[in-house]
Amino acid sequence: MKIALDAMGGDFAPDAVVEGALMAAEILTDDVEIILIGDEDRIHSLLHKHDYKGSRVKVVHASQVIGMGEHPTKALTQKPDSSIAVGYGMLASKKVDAFCSAGNTGAMLVGAVFSVKQVEGILRPALASFIPKLSGGYGIMLDVGAIADCKPEILEQFGEIGSIYAQHIFDIKKPRVGLMNLGEEEGKGTMVTQPTYKLLKENKSIHFIGNIEGRDLFNDKADVIVCDGFTGNVILKLAESIYDILCEKKISDPFFDRFNYEAVGGSPILGVNGNAVIGHGVSSPTAICNMLHLANKMAIAHISEKFRNYFSA
Amino acid sequence: MKIALDAMGGDFAPDAVVEGALMAAEILTDDVEIILIGDEDRIHSLLHKHDYKGSRVKVVHASQVIGMGEHPTKALTQKPDSSIAVGYGMLASKKVDAFCSAGNTGAMLVGAVFSVKQVEGILRPALASFIPKLSGGYGIMLDVGAIADCKPEILEQFGEIGSIYAQHIFDIKKPRVGLMNLGEEEGKGTMVTQPTYKLLKENKSIHFIGNIEGRDLFNDKADVIVCDGFTGNVILKLAESIYDILCEKKISDPFFDRFNYEAVGGSPILGVNGNAVIGHGVSSPTAICNMLHLANKMAIAHISEKFRNYFSA
Repeated sequence: MKIALDAMGGDFAPDAVVEGALMAAEILTDDVEIILIGDEDRIHSLLHKHDYKGSRVKVVHASQVIGMGEHPTKALTQKPDSSIAVGYGMLASKKVDAFCSAGNTGAMLVGAVFSVKQVEGILRPALASFIPKLSGGYGIMLDVGAIADCKPEILEQFGEIGSIYAQHIFDIKKPRVGLMNLGEEEGKGTMVTQPTYKLLKENKSIHFIGNIEGRDLFNDKADVIVCDGFTGNVILKLAESIYDILCEKKISDPFFDRFNYEAVGGSPILGVNGNAVIGHGVSSPTAICNMLHLANKMAIAHISEKFRNYFSA
Repeated sequence: MKIALDAMGGDFAPDAVVEGALMAAEILTDDVEIILIGDEDRIHSLLHKHDYKGSRVKVVHASQVIGMGEHPTKALTQKPDSSIAVGYGMLASKKVDAFCSAGNTGAMLVGAVFSVKQVEGILRPALASFIPKLSGGYGIMLDVGAIADCKPEILEQFGEIGSIYAQHIFDIKKPRVGLMNLGEEEGKGTMVTQPTYKLLKENKSIHFIGNIEGRDLFNDKADVIVCDGFTGNVILKLAESIYDILCEKKISDPFFDRFNYEAVGGSPILGVNGNAVIGHGVSSPTAICNMLHLANKMAIAHISEKFRNYFSA
């Protein structure tokens, strides 16, 4: 398995990225190769600093970097030799099995659609996030920011995409799909969630359990939480801030510790022809290591092929 | 000051409501009179049970009750002698200065518009909630569930309504208004939040500070948090669930303790010609007591007149 990693992406790149890659090289199985993409001189000097002598971490040079604040489409067009563009190029040409970056989120999303392209039949790829359950394990919530305005048909597909992910990565045979809404009863909600409810209810290939509410995020009602990217983004950032507040207050708890973004490492882009993961901008070496772990799991499960099989059938 | 209280509203009514009213009678200033509306026999027997001999708690009979699960409009039409209908009748005829209930939220919202009616110039009244700040004090978030789909013009008014409330109740001279969004930059957001940003920015009567994110809910960025009722409802229920989880885990902290709905007591309906507050369905006596306290504060500040002066000018 070959996993490409944007060495230049994230607030603490390339230092934290290289360190995270070396941590992953220690943990992941022997067949995994990590390809660091970016300024080869800087990467090599960091590898040297860490006294790395192994052969599992490789370097591919990229002369340009897309900054965190740059306009995604413009940056990708103007910087064809940026680490993100080079990474997606390798993913598109199947030189690697997965690509991940803690860099510019917009560029990662746009780059996925530009390079590996969305799976035929999928209206819009989603950015997913993992929500710790009180009972253990994680639920998958999508979308968390790729698409702010979602039509009901897009949300219906998020239910399908999330189900496939939960089946193959979480090993849940019949994932329960819940629609985030402002009330439990059918008929509650917005001009978007109301028709979405009907579509999800009529969809025979998923196990729709109805509406869920903000209070159900962490309980074990649903394995797949369907929402538009606006709502998912607000929820995710709110949950992250709760974790930060608890940390500042030095309140530690096994459940809330699982809110730590570092533990999950990143958000997968689901519905494109390739395994891509976006990490948090502030990614630490631990977060980078876990992002590689996540990308590896997705590659092992051939998750993007699963979407292809389902949606192009 | 006369405050009407729906004795039959809430999961633990009338017992918890009567007990809460008696608690408030002990605390509120001498000029406050509490009028319990509902089944007079049951109320009198509860007052007797509590050995109440004062004159500040009065009883007004209402022969009907609107259940928690009833359809608001239907119930209000079919039950003209329900405690909610009688309470709003007294508010509309100015026999009382405020009305509050922990009963059917929908019936309380519809009842407000049916009876006291929305303030001229206000497009849609909002249901507001109070968000504890880490730095102390509260912010006001609106809407939290009255209107799931909001046009930009409605959200702009929420900014104005929230500002007026924060000025007169929180005593903040120039309340900072933030728009809940999925990114800080102008131009981020949905087909609704993008044009709302422009309207709020151009509105000279409020102090708009731009977009805020889910992570900013508890920090001191904004005093007024503007969002549609769908988003506000999800946020509110999520925050409540965090408090519940911490309680279950026996983690106590002065900041998180302020998440307790009991401390605030209720959500005001803002933008109607009268002071109305909706309590949580599970309201305890303490919550009822604090709801009365909130209604009293709104009545003292003549908050609904402030809206009238502003919007009809």
